[in-house]
Amino acid sequence: MRVIPFGTSSGRPTAHRHVSGLGVDLDTRWILVDCGEGTQQQIMRSPLKISRIAAVLITHLHGDHVLGLPGLLGTMGLEGRVAPLKVVAPAGVARWIDVMCELPILGLDFPLELTELSGDSLLGQGGEPEVVAEVPGATIHALGLRHRVPTFGYRVQEPARPGHLDVKAARALGVADGPDMGRLQRGEAVAVEGGVVQPTEVVGPQRPGRVVTVLGDTTRCTASVDLARDADLLVHEVTYAHDDAHLAEAWKHSTSTDAAAVAREAGAGQLLITHFSSRYADESGLLDEARAVFPSTMAAQELQPVDVRPNHDPGPPTTS
Amino acid sequence: MRVIPFGTSSGRPTAHRHVSGLGVDLDTRWILVDCGEGTQQQIMRSPLKISRIAAVLITHLHGDHVLGLPGLLGTMGLEGRVAPLKVVAPAGVARWIDVMCELPILGLDFPLELTELSGDSLLGQGGEPEVVAEVPGATIHALGLRHRVPTFGYRVQEPARPGHLDVKAARALGVADGPDMGRLQRGEAVAVEGGVVQPTEVVGPQRPGRVVTVLGDTTRCTASVDLARDADLLVHEVTYAHDDAHLAEAWKHSTSTDAAAVAREAGAGQLLITHFSSRYADESGLLDEARAVFPSTMAAQELQPVDVRPNHDPGPPTTS
Repeated sequence: MRVIPFGTSSGRPTAHRHVSGLGVDLDTRWILVDCGEGTQQQIMRSPLKISRIAAVLITHLHGDHVLGLPGLLGTMGLEGRVAPLKVVAPAGVARWIDVMCELPILGLDFPLELTELSGDSLLGQGGEPEVVAEVPGATIHALGLRHRVPTFGYRVQEPARPGHLDVKAARALGVADGPDMGRLQRGEAVAVEGGVVQPTEVVGPQRPGRVVTVLGDTTRCTASVDLARDADLLVHEVTYAHDDAHLAEAWKHSTSTDAAAVAREAGAGQLLITHFSSRYADESGLLDEARAVFPSTMAAQELQPVDVRPNHDPGPPTTS
Repeated sequence: MRVIPFGTSSGRPTAHRHVSGLGVDLDTRWILVDCGEGTQQQIMRSPLKISRIAAVLITHLHGDHVLGLPGLLGTMGLEGRVAPLKVVAPAGVARWIDVMCELPILGLDFPLELTELSGDSLLGQGGEPEVVAEVPGATIHALGLRHRVPTFGYRVQEPARPGHLDVKAARALGVADGPDMGRLQRGEAVAVEGGVVQPTEVVGPQRPGRVVTVLGDTTRCTASVDLARDADLLVHEVTYAHDDAHLAEAWKHSTSTDAAAVAREAGAGQLLITHFSSRYADESGLLDEARAVFPSTMAAQELQPVDVRPNHDPGPPTTS
């Protein structure tokens, strides 16, 4: 599991930076979160394939997060896609797509499975994230954030994984290398010379699936913390530096320290900051500010993959 | 006067080529013809400035020609534009923009002066091109072409320029260097020692303004020739090679030889081909085919300016 940022610029692109888009790679399939103008071309420059997209999640209907969607859908059609595509987005996206199909700016040759999220509240009050989509290899939860328009954050969760198998301990109990090791890891008891080995003796507790939380544009709010709770990786917008907090509040965005505080409060494993205003020459100052609050912070670099390290890995059982 | 191609790929971008967009530079202002996804970023990489766009002309409402327009308008707003912007496009574009403003995918902070062209006919029958816009430094004419959806070609015409002044001949008649030379060129008679010099004696005939014709997607049709008549530069799509003419007819596109035949029939000065299908490894074969019919053909290279050379320049008056 890894994420690949396609664009790191807020509001508009620059000559060499792109607007929002991020891939959450589940190995055989992947999830695209946001699709600003130019995202399809950035995907083509990355190791990910457009044909392997399992779902597209749109955080909100501001242009820099969604204007690349029709071009991507058009390219999927030209590539011959016939399989349905899941799209989760705030209410209104269907009307926009319908108008483009009628004009016809967009020709759609495959079905969209569109889930429109309603979000009257702009308060980001939090609560239990709701399941909005299931794809092979992940369940996706969402919750409304606090921005100028209805905006959602997404929590992408892998299924639970089997516990670690202590191979040495299993061998010491007489288990032969080969299929029996796999049986133990899958939770089955195995007969050995003179007895039975139970999986609990050599396999650690089931490991929770990894979690990547990708927030849309937002000010600091309870929902961000609820979405990022114990996440292995939190992707959080940092439009402004700490000293520009008045701008962040005015435009309902976050500062470096806002993002870091959310990561700390949520107990996230790592923080990846992105969505930088072009007013800053580079993101190093923002990164320093965030690290002062939450040391495990990285700044997104376009097309540079970030591996999702398990936050709470219980490891093999303690041998007594 | 020069043109700058922003994108040369038909249908969809590749990792390193962009979809349709082209600047017609009038020196202090410029005209954008088509605006596929990524065009704004290509403009940022070129010598042209987004703030100096005098008008946007859209040939037709297929995604690869128009999906970059909302992002460009959004960036103009973020740059602080308040001046109205002329947009000429096929009917339907207003409805699309309205829906985006309501959602609000797009926030428009300045007025659009939108001219919607109606085009029930898809036959490209030709006739006299109609004036659809005037901007400082150019008059723009349009005519419907022959494609799968209503599509227009544009003819951008500079105002007529004063004739060439033969400075040597003027001096020989007693005209002093300085303001009198300018008066002659502007058509005023000038008093000299012992008489009067008439402008007709030293200034050649008024030179016609240069003309750049930019056609949208089209099969070969009469309207293309009418739009390109005596143009100094014709920009014509070449989606397919000559051997793939059946595909060109099926999809209502042009081959290399179609484009060259139009340039020859219209008496154009130079031909710039673009909009290449990604099925061809490069455009050299298409260029060779076009040159066999119309030698003054160039293949568009993204961000490489092409100067518009006068096709019919009468030069200074012949001294007898």
